[in-house]
Amino acid sequence: MSKEGLGLTAKKKNLQDWYPEVVLKSDMADYSAVKGCMVIKPNAYYVWQEIQNYFNERLMNLNVRNAYFPLFIPESFFKKEAQHAQGFKPEVAWIANDENSERLAIRPTSETIIYDSYSRWIRTYRDLPFRLNQWANIIRWESKATRLFLRTREFLWQEGHCVYETREECDKETLTFLQEYEKLCRELLAIPVLKGYKSENEKFAGALYTLSIEAIMPDGRSLQCGTSHNLGQEFAKSFGIEFLGKDEKKHHPWQNSWGISTRLIGAMIMLHGDDKGIILPPKVAYNKVVIIPILFEDSKRDVINQAKKIQTLLKDFNPILDLDGEHSPGWKFNNYELKGIPLRLEIGPKDLKAKSAVLVRRDNGKKISVKLKDLKKQIRLILNGIQDNLYEKASRLMKSSVVEARNLNEFEKAISNRKIAKIFWCDSVTCEKDLKERLNTIKSILLPLEQGKVSGKCVICNNEAKVMAYFGKPY
Amino acid sequence: MSKEGLGLTAKKKNLQDWYPEVVLKSDMADYSAVKGCMVIKPNAYYVWQEIQNYFNERLMNLNVRNAYFPLFIPESFFKKEAQHAQGFKPEVAWIANDENSERLAIRPTSETIIYDSYSRWIRTYRDLPFRLNQWANIIRWESKATRLFLRTREFLWQEGHCVYETREECDKETLTFLQEYEKLCRELLAIPVLKGYKSENEKFAGALYTLSIEAIMPDGRSLQCGTSHNLGQEFAKSFGIEFLGKDEKKHHPWQNSWGISTRLIGAMIMLHGDDKGIILPPKVAYNKVVIIPILFEDSKRDVINQAKKIQTLLKDFNPILDLDGEHSPGWKFNNYELKGIPLRLEIGPKDLKAKSAVLVRRDNGKKISVKLKDLKKQIRLILNGIQDNLYEKASRLMKSSVVEARNLNEFEKAISNRKIAKIFWCDSVTCEKDLKERLNTIKSILLPLEQGKVSGKCVICNNEAKVMAYFGKPY
Repeated sequence: MSKEGLGLTAKKKNLQDWYPEVVLKSDMADYSAVKGCMVIKPNAYYVWQEIQNYFNERLMNLNVRNAYFPLFIPESFFKKEAQHAQGFKPEVAWIANDENSERLAIRPTSETIIYDSYSRWIRTYRDLPFRLNQWANIIRWESKATRLFLRTREFLWQEGHCVYETREECDKETLTFLQEYEKLCRELLAIPVLKGYKSENEKFAGALYTLSIEAIMPDGRSLQCGTSHNLGQEFAKSFGIEFLGKDEKKHHPWQNSWGISTRLIGAMIMLHGDDKGIILPPKVAYNKVVIIPILFEDSKRDVINQAKKIQTLLKDFNPILDLDGEHSPGWKFNNYELKGIPLRLEIGPKDLKAKSAVLVRRDNGKKISVKLKDLKKQIRLILNGIQDNLYEKASRLMKSSVVEARNLNEFEKAISNRKIAKIFWCDSVTCEKDLKERLNTIKSILLPLEQGKVSGKCVICNNEAKVMAYFGKPY
Repeated sequence: MSKEGLGLTAKKKNLQDWYPEVVLKSDMADYSAVKGCMVIKPNAYYVWQEIQNYFNERLMNLNVRNAYFPLFIPESFFKKEAQHAQGFKPEVAWIANDENSERLAIRPTSETIIYDSYSRWIRTYRDLPFRLNQWANIIRWESKATRLFLRTREFLWQEGHCVYETREECDKETLTFLQEYEKLCRELLAIPVLKGYKSENEKFAGALYTLSIEAIMPDGRSLQCGTSHNLGQEFAKSFGIEFLGKDEKKHHPWQNSWGISTRLIGAMIMLHGDDKGIILPPKVAYNKVVIIPILFEDSKRDVINQAKKIQTLLKDFNPILDLDGEHSPGWKFNNYELKGIPLRLEIGPKDLKAKSAVLVRRDNGKKISVKLKDLKKQIRLILNGIQDNLYEKASRLMKSSVVEARNLNEFEKAISNRKIAKIFWCDSVTCEKDLKERLNTIKSILLPLEQGKVSGKCVICNNEAKVMAYFGKPY
């Protein structure tokens, strides 16, 4: 492969061209023969596995158990909760077998099939709180253009479904799960997020309210990274979930549902990558280090031997040792930078003599010469440093992407500058719909959890302001 | 719930009644609103998760990476490999969207969709061996009666798909993966298995040959627990997978595929359970211990305090502490025996004084009084003992289930005694088909890997014997 073929043709500032190119060339995913469906390749699937491992441990602490419910949902179940049915109608795929019986949908989300089981399982207040999660594939028959990880007809996710006696408990844990998502994004993927409520227009179909975390991408657009819905009692009423209370009377419980998906991998790629390729946060990189020996005829054997010793020494970091003789070290550097391996270790005859090796950070290109005896300890520190630096860099980007707008003029300027506008807002469905008609890609992103003092007029429609809100262009 | 309602009405010797009852009452699974589809409940899903954790570590050692391919498969892909298409035809579910474009199947197995990608990814011998695995849900539109875990329209599995330069490598690793399955069954699920080749009639549609592990159930029927197929070069030819060899010429590679599924959970339940309920092998039990305080008014507080301390002490075993005041200890004993918790710890006022606790093993009912200071160590030993005992007991069952039959008379007697008959066999497709016509549920189970000396006539058709084979009734 030529150097041209290996590298990226698009620059990151042209994000819409860069993103699909980098996803393919970094070997994170591929298109498949099925329109709208992707192949998640090993380095990307590993990120998902690490998300699963991390989150399963958190779920155990929160007394949430994993279970698995059917892929198929009877058509009649959708009809039971009217808003929910309406919201998902355009995106449902149906299966064609058993034409005599009821149509079956392929799950676009599993509230209905799960709550049918809950209606048989939940009997008394002693069964509550009742908390289950499932890891599953989801089908939404999108007609919009495919974007790898971000918009595909099939994706992987987890969906949690809890049932509570009281609204208070439900409110509290709906927030808890959102906070868990924020933590996961921060600790694992180095993604900082905004946290808040979705507007009435943007909430989940059938929910009382939706909490969401949003990451801001380098083009100033926000990307929804996880949601937690307080479903109120409506699904319980529709599906006949009742419990005998301590008062010996029957009650409908309160429910929430919450999810994150493989979309997070797209956010991670888009946020951290650069003109050279993707950058994997060390915590989710399958190979955290790549060892590249610098070979000359007279020292080849010794250098290779040393490189092999280093590979064994560094096995905790699952290092690649690239002994391929076809390509130059320079070609290899480019290749592993493209694939986002967090740290490169170079070892040549000079290093051999000095009993050291050269480390090169993927995030900032800095070179560090390290004595072999300190290698393991230093690498651990440097990897932590890379993880932190990615988060801090992304945090600065997020900060600079949000601008306060005190009037319509400033609002429109912010929007045309591709920023997220922070405004006082009336929180009305009509106001947001009117805006959408005018600037069809602009929506409310969030009503942040911490509202501060709200006063004055709505920046968009000039009615009384009720909330502080972020507006912008979402993915 | 009354004691009657809690316990099992069916005895294990009536396996066909006992099995569905115990699966439901032990809370391992439930039927769903969708015909043929089940809900995998938390204690059973945990078994699957432990299988995943165990096997993912093995896969890493074997240089197999995880990936994820689409749920949907274009109809034309099935047609490319004729035998494969024929084999899966009756079981494929189709989706009804996009009526103008090609029909899409929901994967009944993923050879075709995966090998389409492989044809684009594999270029030279340097890309080989190429090894991927995926964890996925599978749909087979069975028309036979649903059996929880054993025969459902949807199930979970892993499918590995490897590509090699030579037949030798492919043969070798096809066997390696089978051996891994045997090890997993033994170490994790305490299931002993027979290992061997499937007959020509029973091999995977499109394979050169199929290796299989089979567990023998208490009713003498064999249950296929995992398969590893050498696919030869046929799929490579059908899907245009070619590599440039060291000889600078193009070649079709050799491929294998191999899988285990949630069916293993069914085998585990059926094999180990008894008239009281299921028995979870300790290694896959979410709660390995249940603590039941024996409460009397005057010592209640002290006993509960002690029980809580023990709970903390035993946190490695994720113990349940049952403080429920509604039910008697006896009711609780039955309940956790039904659910298969490996070890029960009873603590009452006498134990408190003696600074000890009583442990009761689920597998054999034995009671052991243990000093509190030795508790953790002793429990670890006892749990290992339970794990081993389950395997040994099942091994004895397996041994007694296989009988040698030297002639047709002995063969028929073995079959009518619900045994697996070990015979000399001609290995002919016609012989097996003729037998099927006569005794329609009897098939060849395996041609064991270790054949020993084969001589004389085929026990069934009296032609020249070529192999040693197991015949019997499969699930």
